[in-house]
Amino acid sequence: MAVARITEIIGSSPKSWDDAVKNALERANKTLRGLTGIEVTKMNAAVGKGGKITEYRAHIRITFILEG
Amino acid sequence: MAVARITEIIGSSPKSWDDAVKNALERANKTLRGLTGIEVTKMNAAVGKGGKITEYRAHIRITFILEG
Amino acid sequence: MAVARITEIIGSSPKSWDDAVKNALERANKTLRGLTGIEVTKMNAAVGKGGKITEYRAHIRITFILEG
Amino acid sequence: MAVARITEIIGSSPKSWDDAVKNALERANKTLRGLTGIEVTKMNAAVGKGGKITEYRAHIRITFILEG
Amino acid sequence: MAVARITEIIGSSPKSWDDAVKNALERANKTLRGLTGIEVTKMNAAVGKGGKITEYRAHIRITFILEG
Amino acid sequence: MAVARITEIIGSSPKSWDDAVKNALERANKTLRGLTGIEVTKMNAAVGKGGKITEYRAHIRITFILEG
Amino acid sequence: MAVARITEIIGSSPKSWDDAVKNALERANKTLRGLTGIEVTKMNAAVGKGGKITEYRAHIRITFILEG
Amino acid sequence: MAVARITEIIGSSPKSWDDAVKNALERANKTLRGLTGIEVTKMNAAVGKGGKITEYRAHIRITFILEG
Amino acid sequence: MAVARITEIIGSSPKSWDDAVKNALERANKTLRGLTGIEVTKMNAAVGKGGKITEYRAHIRITFILEG
Amino acid sequence: MAVARITEIIGSSPKSWDDAVKNALERANKTLRGLTGIEVTKMNAAVGKGGKITEYRAHIRITFILEG
Amino acid sequence: MAVARITEIIGSSPKSWDDAVKNALERANKTLRGLTGIEVTKMNAAVGKGGKITEYRAHIRITFILEG
Amino acid sequence: MAVARITEIIGSSPKSWDDAVKNALERANKTLRGLTGIEVTKMNAAVGKGGKITEYRAHIRITFILEG
Repeated sequence: MAVARITEIIGSSPKSWDDAVKNALERANKTLRGLTGIEVTKMNAAVGKGGKITEYRAHIRITFILEG
Repeated sequence: MAVARITEIIGSSPKSWDDAVKNALERANKTLRGLTGIEVTKMNAAVGKGGKITEYRAHIRITFILEG
Repeated sequence: MAVARITEIIGSSPKSWDDAVKNALERANKTLRGLTGIEVTKMNAAVGKGGKITEYRAHIRITFILEG
Repeated sequence: MAVARITEIIGSSPKSWDDAVKNALERANKTLRGLTGIEVTKMNAAVGKGGKITEYRAHIRITFILEG
Repeated sequence: MAVARITEIIGSSPKSWDDAVKNALERANKTLRGLTGIEVTKMNAAVGKGGKITEYRAHIRITFILEG
Repeated sequence: MAVARITEIIGSSPKSWDDAVKNALERANKTLRGLTGIEVTKMNAAVGKGGKITEYRAHIRITFILEG
Repeated sequence: MAVARITEIIGSSPKSWDDAVKNALERANKTLRGLTGIEVTKMNAAVGKGGKITEYRAHIRITFILEG
Repeated sequence: MAVARITEIIGSSPKSWDDAVKNALERANKTLRGLTGIEVTKMNAAVGKGGKITEYRAHIRITFILEG
Repeated sequence: MAVARITEIIGSSPKSWDDAVKNALERANKTLRGLTGIEVTKMNAAVGKGGKITEYRAHIRITFILEG
Repeated sequence: MAVARITEIIGSSPKSWDDAVKNALERANKTLRGLTGIEVTKMNAAVGKGGKITEYRAHIRITFILEG
Repeated sequence: MAVARITEIIGSSPKSWDDAVKNALERANKTLRGLTGIEVTKMNAAVGKGGKITEYRAHIRITFILEG
Repeated sequence: MAVARITEIIGSSPKSWDDAVKNALERANKTLRGLTGIEVTKMNAAVGKGGKITEYRAHIRITFILEG
């Protein structure tokens, strides 16, 4: 039977949390194969001198199938 | 005094978590009356062969007033 | 060394959770200085008579540097 | 063997949390049979303009036996 | 898109926790359709006068698709 | 839109937890305006030499609207 | 320096959770000395055939000083 | 009214988690009377040089009635 | 001193959760050395059209010694 | 009866977590009176380019008595 | 197979949390045999009139083997 | 935007938890680049026959930037 692994990564974006998730997923695709799902476990952000969000950060847990 | 109930449902959408929440709420309105609030308790997603999100899923807890 | 404080506020918006976070942050900037980051800890919403979300609410924890 | 179900409801009362629990339980008896136990999972309250509690709210999980 | 619901039930068995899960699932099939998954959230047991387990109990969360 | 803040205080009473909550709320009204709700997050107590409760303590989270 | 121990007991009462806590504490005083504090960690109850609470149960963690 | 105590023990077995629970319960019966229930709170295991489980371990919380 | 790492994997089996754990461990042995222990953190399952479990899934955290 | 408040601050230090706690406490004494206790809720650290800890950070919850 | 028990104690020290753990462990050795491990579950402290820590407190869970 | 990964390791030391954290970090530097922060998530220890701590163990979550 298939065995999967879960790894946790943090994506970031100057635009939104949705975009931060996409950036994380895009990076994960460079080194991992067999991705089947993600879960967002934390949404935080850095706030700059002007009091606005400068970097959205999304923590995601990624599940991917381990080959053979 | 009013008594309310909480039930947990999972909405899905090919577009976004916000849309998944809306779909869940729309479905809930078909069978439940007296909805007063929701809370998002989990945001996950299925990832397809191409490494992109194919289905956003939002778990929500819905509160609604029990009649009479 | 710098010492920071964390406070919890709830922002609201008729449009979205992202907007609720922004409203909370905007209000925080009126009374706090030295904001460095936020974390979203809860996303809930009020649902109106028509069964639609009438107010999005985002609970955020704000970190800010305590001066001297 | 018996199978039971757990459902979560919120009772309210202008008097106390104990009374809120009783109101919740009373309402549950109208639609459910075979109740065997409850657990209080949250005690909160609405506060009115005068700064006093206007409505006590108790979240309870109710266990009841599913018939045949 | 499909919307699913999660409900929590407790199965019991004089034999084992695995059997308690099966009994819970069997009962759920009598009233629910579209079951897609379960999660075991608690394993406890009643112990009799002789100091042995007399009833295994498994709490499970069941996910099922809400039709149309 | 309105923005609210949550603060945590501990009330005490020689009589009961209900009374400890009331004392906490009464004190909060002296310095805060716009209170809308509370949640009890912890109930503990000091026990004296005679083995009886000498001070009931209730931890509550208070929500209040931030003006302007 | 003093060293304390924490133990968990469950008190019950046909009247109320407050009474269940008192019964638990009274019993603890029979076998333990040096009690300094308690915390209520769970409030549940058995419900009888008539749909009313027949036994209130309070789980408490008791702290007591270990002698010499 | 009866007062119960909860204690936590860890059973082990070379065969299975079910067996580890049984071993823990058997040992508890040697020193405790009035056992009424258990809950499994953790299932872990030691893995040997060959990469196989050499010892299953089950953490259980045992409830027993305190006499007189 | 030895340093260990913890990784999380998900094993599956058509037979049982015990078997799902074994499959996960077997797969881990193909790529990891120095395994010393595991902990089961989640037990869920897929349910098929017939309302029966078609795939048992066990989430386990594996500890292994990092060489040199 | 006395009412206390809990606030959360983050202390930092280039030397140790113990020192980070002390720095946080020292800063708190500048603006708060009636401090009675603290609890460490998180210990994290920033790591610099050389792979060493450059700033220890301790999150603490401070309890202080609210005057009259 | 060996069966172990877990008990929770609180050590204190005027010097440090490390010392509070040692004091707790030293006391435990007076009445318990077969200790195999500990886990620190809480670090708090009493703060005196001068705004300094007067007593460090460490909550620890102690595991020890139950003899025959 | 940068994407980071979080991995969990356990460091040990015969001297202290601070030293266990340092050992874990030192080992991590051998195989990982771009470390930016750590968080201590668990502090436990092995206790030897003499009833003293023989090995301090610190679980840490390490964040490091994923290159290109």
